[in-house]
Amino acid sequence: MRQPERGGRVYLVGAGPGDPGLLTIRGRDLLEAADVVLADRLVVDEVLAMVPPEKLVDVGRVPAEGRSTRERQEAISRRLVELAREGKAVVRLKGGDPYVFGRGGEEVEALRDAGIPVEIVPGVTSAVAGPAAFGIPLTHRDLASVAALVSGHEGLDKEGPDVDWEALARLDGTLVVLMGVSSLEEYVARLLGGGMEAETPVAVIERGTLPDQRMVRGRLGEIVERARSARVRPPAVVVIGPVVDLAWEEEGEA
Amino acid sequence: MRQPERGGRVYLVGAGPGDPGLLTIRGRDLLEAADVVLADRLVVDEVLAMVPPEKLVDVGRVPAEGRSTRERQEAISRRLVELAREGKAVVRLKGGDPYVFGRGGEEVEALRDAGIPVEIVPGVTSAVAGPAAFGIPLTHRDLASVAALVSGHEGLDKEGPDVDWEALARLDGTLVVLMGVSSLEEYVARLLGGGMEAETPVAVIERGTLPDQRMVRGRLGEIVERARSARVRPPAVVVIGPVVDLAWEEEGEA
Repeated sequence: MRQPERGGRVYLVGAGPGDPGLLTIRGRDLLEAADVVLADRLVVDEVLAMVPPEKLVDVGRVPAEGRSTRERQEAISRRLVELAREGKAVVRLKGGDPYVFGRGGEEVEALRDAGIPVEIVPGVTSAVAGPAAFGIPLTHRDLASVAALVSGHEGLDKEGPDVDWEALARLDGTLVVLMGVSSLEEYVARLLGGGMEAETPVAVIERGTLPDQRMVRGRLGEIVERARSARVRPPAVVVIGPVVDLAWEEEGEA
Repeated sequence: MRQPERGGRVYLVGAGPGDPGLLTIRGRDLLEAADVVLADRLVVDEVLAMVPPEKLVDVGRVPAEGRSTRERQEAISRRLVELAREGKAVVRLKGGDPYVFGRGGEEVEALRDAGIPVEIVPGVTSAVAGPAAFGIPLTHRDLASVAALVSGHEGLDKEGPDVDWEALARLDGTLVVLMGVSSLEEYVARLLGGGMEAETPVAVIERGTLPDQRMVRGRLGEIVERARSARVRPPAVVVIGPVVDLAWEEEGEA
């Protein structure tokens, strides 16, 4: 592994699910100490507000229109390498946790191939905190012994392994779909086609842990229509399974 | 819902995976502000050291020998209700995240039934941070689109729904087993019996994120013997799937 020229380093930091209080102590300290912060588009404004503006690099400018996801990702990785080679302490800030559908694995591989030291600072994932914000646990001794995390975007991505929604339909437990709104209709159809009961409870949680968080609930057979009527927008987490019946009624429910 | 007599409240706080820096800002603030802190046995000493000793209640004393898990859990829930009824700000501190195999759902139900206001403060789960401490992402666009979280203890627990290890064996993705050491031999046999390849990479991660963290790696067909030779002890997280091949070699590996 090659060494960086002047001690630069990249910290891959999980920004947590939204509420700035759910950032880790280590993550907050690194945001303060960093020379430069490259934030993912999934980091909410409430957390970005903790970063001094002069340190913030808009990664949205790096990718050009029309490039593939992989090309955009490679451009970001190159930028991280360049900044670290300049000797900078670079924070790469990712929504939720960097290693749960955050493409953190790919960025770390690129950095290590370039000889840049990397530290990973996990974050609270929205897969857990979104449902928790409405009282929904991922597991429960009477209701679910398994929680499967999956990305709604993954199925639309031609380069990654396909999600076997039909197999997930038969998994007895909780299914959590991150970035689960835009492809909701598609994967609900596949779950129903795979034999999941139309009566299975579903919750769509928008901006969970933030003051304007919102939950839309329904059964699997009706959730597409309900989410459409309620005009649910990304980012949202979708929880499917009997644990959804434990949700609190009183706050934020549409 | 009945109201508490004098404004008591319970905060169910995730202590994170081990490293005190991975506690959330909100969690740390609540530990400082609480009147009393009831810690779970899975909270590591490094985090307990952040709690002033006079605030700490040893929940280990509440359960009597020979009681069932459910009875012990009920005793803890009663204690939380009593303290909140005394008007106290009570932190219930759980290892990792309270809603991922933390029995948080059950405690919250008991508290709400008793009319006690509850706030849930999610934590970084060991299911994510343990593997991340050795560079293992739960998902990766070329390797895994699904991560299933399961508890090794759950299968030994007669009251909960059984884990269908044979179905998990066929799930193409990453399998993360929390509290995965004591029943390793049992569920590895079931995964192999369910058709999972003996060559599947496995990592057993002990005390992930702490300075003395350790990883033992091997293939599914040999991991029981390797973990035994290395004398792996709980708490540990077991990761199974192709993402394990991304693990870093240089630190903490046995």
